[in-house]
Amino acid sequence: MTLIACDIGSTRIKYGLVRRGCVQDHGTIPSASEEPLARRLPELARTLRALCAKTGTALGDCAGISVSLPTLVDAASGRLLSEFGRFRDMPTLDLRAWAKAEFGLPLALENDARMAAIGEWRHGAGRGCDSLVMLTLGTGLGTGVVIEGRVLRGKHGQAGCLGGHLTLRYDGRACDCGNIGCAEAEASTRCLAALARQRADFAASPLANEPVLDFAAVFRHAAAGDPCAGALRDHSLLVWASLAVSLIHAYDPEVLVLGGGVMGSAGVILPAVREHIRRHVHTPWGEVRIVPSALGDTAALVAGEWLLQEQFPHLKS
Amino acid sequence: MTLIACDIGSTRIKYGLVRRGCVQDHGTIPSASEEPLARRLPELARTLRALCAKTGTALGDCAGISVSLPTLVDAASGRLLSEFGRFRDMPTLDLRAWAKAEFGLPLALENDARMAAIGEWRHGAGRGCDSLVMLTLGTGLGTGVVIEGRVLRGKHGQAGCLGGHLTLRYDGRACDCGNIGCAEAEASTRCLAALARQRADFAASPLANEPVLDFAAVFRHAAAGDPCAGALRDHSLLVWASLAVSLIHAYDPEVLVLGGGVMGSAGVILPAVREHIRRHVHTPWGEVRIVPSALGDTAALVAGEWLLQEQFPHLKS
Repeated sequence: MTLIACDIGSTRIKYGLVRRGCVQDHGTIPSASEEPLARRLPELARTLRALCAKTGTALGDCAGISVSLPTLVDAASGRLLSEFGRFRDMPTLDLRAWAKAEFGLPLALENDARMAAIGEWRHGAGRGCDSLVMLTLGTGLGTGVVIEGRVLRGKHGQAGCLGGHLTLRYDGRACDCGNIGCAEAEASTRCLAALARQRADFAASPLANEPVLDFAAVFRHAAAGDPCAGALRDHSLLVWASLAVSLIHAYDPEVLVLGGGVMGSAGVILPAVREHIRRHVHTPWGEVRIVPSALGDTAALVAGEWLLQEQFPHLKS
Repeated sequence: MTLIACDIGSTRIKYGLVRRGCVQDHGTIPSASEEPLARRLPELARTLRALCAKTGTALGDCAGISVSLPTLVDAASGRLLSEFGRFRDMPTLDLRAWAKAEFGLPLALENDARMAAIGEWRHGAGRGCDSLVMLTLGTGLGTGVVIEGRVLRGKHGQAGCLGGHLTLRYDGRACDCGNIGCAEAEASTRCLAALARQRADFAASPLANEPVLDFAAVFRHAAAGDPCAGALRDHSLLVWASLAVSLIHAYDPEVLVLGGGVMGSAGVILPAVREHIRRHVHTPWGEVRIVPSALGDTAALVAGEWLLQEQFPHLKS
């Protein structure tokens, strides 16, 4: 199967031409997620046409378009159910109608972290296993779950993809989702600046002079001995590791895959999460494998074939 | 189908004769869960024989025995996987062999909170829905999950029944399971005395003179204005309500059923949990129904028919 895949994130829209589970050519354009997504669709359409032209692919040779987004998706209707402050027009958009009118192609939609989980399960770090949890550490925290060979969606499409909104501290920080003390509100790129600014030692920390305050900077200054960065690092690792234990207790996977942009610092994160899980998880059957994403940014793109075949079973593979 | 059902809890073993989804006759014997379960089996066998005699039921008329226990169960092998300090011999017991030798009957095993969830789903508060979470507030906190008509078990039998061991406070109290800040370690009958004793105002509270320190006493003295009891009440309601939000985010149910002995105080618990969920849950599709158990103590018993038919499909209904 040949298809066009788009992974619409908070900062970048990744796109690619996918053929038989491999990304043939890919690129990114800015998301501008503070604006309505409808305003980005004309440029996205031009970009996808240019991708086809560049790879010598006729639209008629494409089985369809897969799109993943940072929102809850009702797979049956194709409705986007929430927006968390990004692309505020999402609940009003009909992307299926857009793809039909613009390209004459069917379009399949799914939550972005669930798509990354599907990609890692079929083609990446979870290949060969049938029970997997994916946790993406990025702007927010996303999760996706496969249990005994079935993608977990639940009655209203929410199951498995709201792992970043499990309560990790019942008297903690308010989250954009409405809950209190969500993992995403306690430690994510989205809340990092606020976490840093509430520390008394932040003003004197080299972090205060960083042009971009991200976890790469935090881990770098922590390793160099800055106490503020060290405290932010230890706090965030504890939150992510505690969330990992909750996800294992909730979904009983064989494999936990860690991905997302923050995993650029996998050398810091993986050993800490593994050690916390080893000490604190309750899995009398044995040990969950904790592994980094094998597909990185392309996980949600390569999942497109599985999603199109699931949602449009008549499409030929 | 006629069957014998046993629900082996931390304090009582409940048993009953179940016929076509109704409990015909039932009773309890003490658990003595600090001792090995093997020592309780001779009295349990005598009790079940007496139940059959009293109800005029021949063993040959019974399709089998269903047993629920406060432990992780590997349904395929019938092995009991953990013990959390109760019936420490559970992982070494072969209850199927016991039932075969003692009664000549097949025996089906399941986790107790998962069985309560099955009972409420088939015959109780969740009848007619296909996605349900059950949360039992008792000595510990138990959960069971049904998603789109399937009982959630997971790869190793753990999925859905460890909801009491989701991390609710990443820097919280140590739990018997090995984790930190589990809901069960933050607010349950098991940890209530420890929670109370760490408060400076406990010694002067009427709670200190209660012969049994349980949540019924806490809610009674809180209503009468005792500040220590009031603080324990507010803390516990916040923990349970925060856990309820996490369970809804994790499993996407239509209905959340609250059961267990502590729900004797449903008049205090239900309004508080409902209000917290209304304010803090993220369910853009609509509202989860929050309801009390309809079957109470018998939920795990009436689930026996479903479990026997699932595990021994040749049994006639």
